[in-house]
Amino acid sequence: MKLVRFGPSGSEKPGIVAADGSIRDLSSVVDDISGAVLSPAGLDRLRAIDPTTLPAAPAGARLGSCVPMPYNFLAVGLNYADHAAESGMPIPKEPILFNKAPTSISGPDDDVVLLKDSAKSDWEVELAFVIGTEAFNVPAEKALDHIAGYCICNDVSERFWQIESTGQWVKGKSGPTYGPVGPWLVTGDEIADPQALAMTLDLNGNRMQTGSTETMIFGVVELIAYISRFMKLVPGDIITTGTPPGVGMGMKPPVFLKAGDEMVLTVEGLGQQRQKVVAA
Amino acid sequence: MKLVRFGPSGSEKPGIVAADGSIRDLSSVVDDISGAVLSPAGLDRLRAIDPTTLPAAPAGARLGSCVPMPYNFLAVGLNYADHAAESGMPIPKEPILFNKAPTSISGPDDDVVLLKDSAKSDWEVELAFVIGTEAFNVPAEKALDHIAGYCICNDVSERFWQIESTGQWVKGKSGPTYGPVGPWLVTGDEIADPQALAMTLDLNGNRMQTGSTETMIFGVVELIAYISRFMKLVPGDIITTGTPPGVGMGMKPPVFLKAGDEMVLTVEGLGQQRQKVVAA
Repeated sequence: MKLVRFGPSGSEKPGIVAADGSIRDLSSVVDDISGAVLSPAGLDRLRAIDPTTLPAAPAGARLGSCVPMPYNFLAVGLNYADHAAESGMPIPKEPILFNKAPTSISGPDDDVVLLKDSAKSDWEVELAFVIGTEAFNVPAEKALDHIAGYCICNDVSERFWQIESTGQWVKGKSGPTYGPVGPWLVTGDEIADPQALAMTLDLNGNRMQTGSTETMIFGVVELIAYISRFMKLVPGDIITTGTPPGVGMGMKPPVFLKAGDEMVLTVEGLGQQRQKVVAA
Repeated sequence: MKLVRFGPSGSEKPGIVAADGSIRDLSSVVDDISGAVLSPAGLDRLRAIDPTTLPAAPAGARLGSCVPMPYNFLAVGLNYADHAAESGMPIPKEPILFNKAPTSISGPDDDVVLLKDSAKSDWEVELAFVIGTEAFNVPAEKALDHIAGYCICNDVSERFWQIESTGQWVKGKSGPTYGPVGPWLVTGDEIADPQALAMTLDLNGNRMQTGSTETMIFGVVELIAYISRFMKLVPGDIITTGTPPGVGMGMKPPVFLKAGDEMVLTVEGLGQQRQKVVAA
């Protein structure tokens, strides 16, 4: 099942993707793709609906993030061995965790608006997962029970604020529109193995990132077990799991985003994102 | 004006403190102390109400956090010169910013439940402020316009997860109940100068922290201007501004929280918090 949110920014409606690819309006059934809707029972309820009985979304409707602004929008740093190497950083012994501001979230095809004076904004194609039920002190063998589904996240990163500024990466990960999420929330039953998904990112038609979640250092199961030892995750929380090699910072010389650029991201089974970069 | 939230955890009602100190039920007027209620117009509307015309809250009602779970719960590290020294860290050149999970938030007098296996949980009395209107790229001279009010925050910190674990402090700042906030949201008009407030923390009746916000390195105004350069703050967001000297980690030998301990925190004009520490 593929769930979406469509309509103008800030007033998105919930939707479901029908077998023919059309988006159907779920707003007569649920208020949003959030809270108890993301629980196993909530998702089962939606699965029981024939999407073709629902009204179609307006043709060409904008897609919002596939889930609304979460409380916890977490990201994992240096979670691909090759990306750690290109960043000149050692392979971490345990997950490096940082925050993206929930207010960074945007639709999968929304413009990425560069922060004022940003000279070092960069791309990162990532597999993200969305929490379906509260998770605290969850053992690894129960971890997947707490996942509602998966989606693409572009963990857009301002490297000056992330690295050259003092401490803590949140500063460089949090600009408004620096967190495109979607297009779809693909429920867990459709992803046989989250650790075997091919992923790509093209910049202006040139392939910059090619990877697979199979080379992730800390996988989805391990991340939930680890994170839930020191904090509680709640339905709708988004965890984006790190990026494979090929970010702009790692090029010689480095390449950063500028107005007019276009990014296209894919993760196997999760669709595609396409963003234009615009000036502040 | 002092705003509160009272009642069982997860179903708090909004309230206002009357001149006689009693809590009056605001739930016939607003749903919560959040969103547009925190704007200047929203607060003016509450100010126009005579609290004695509202029903009293039940005697002895539990207080929740004075604002609900925010999207951004940010904290400033090493923001008092003396505290940086006791932590063995240099005085930062610009604000060190980290996240507390929104799910760490708890009422001002709720028990602090130690994380499983926590051996290094510590206290930090802090001045926090709450955002009243959206703030992005805000110049310093307009910063105070974006503040709804002030409150106490105990930035409870698990030093193993914060410091000995890999990277990023969020791990050690985010346990459920590691973020007591309140008792009151004291609106900005009642705080003539947020940089001249005395603050204390007692552990089991012994004074551990004595400070004043006048020795803060980066003040409230500067923090809003700085943070809003790289992220957007929204109404209800909480920023807690760092702690003065006297945390357990800085003692020789270090002292950490254990079940049965009691903390009492004060910040001038913002009331008092009192928490018992209990085992996981």
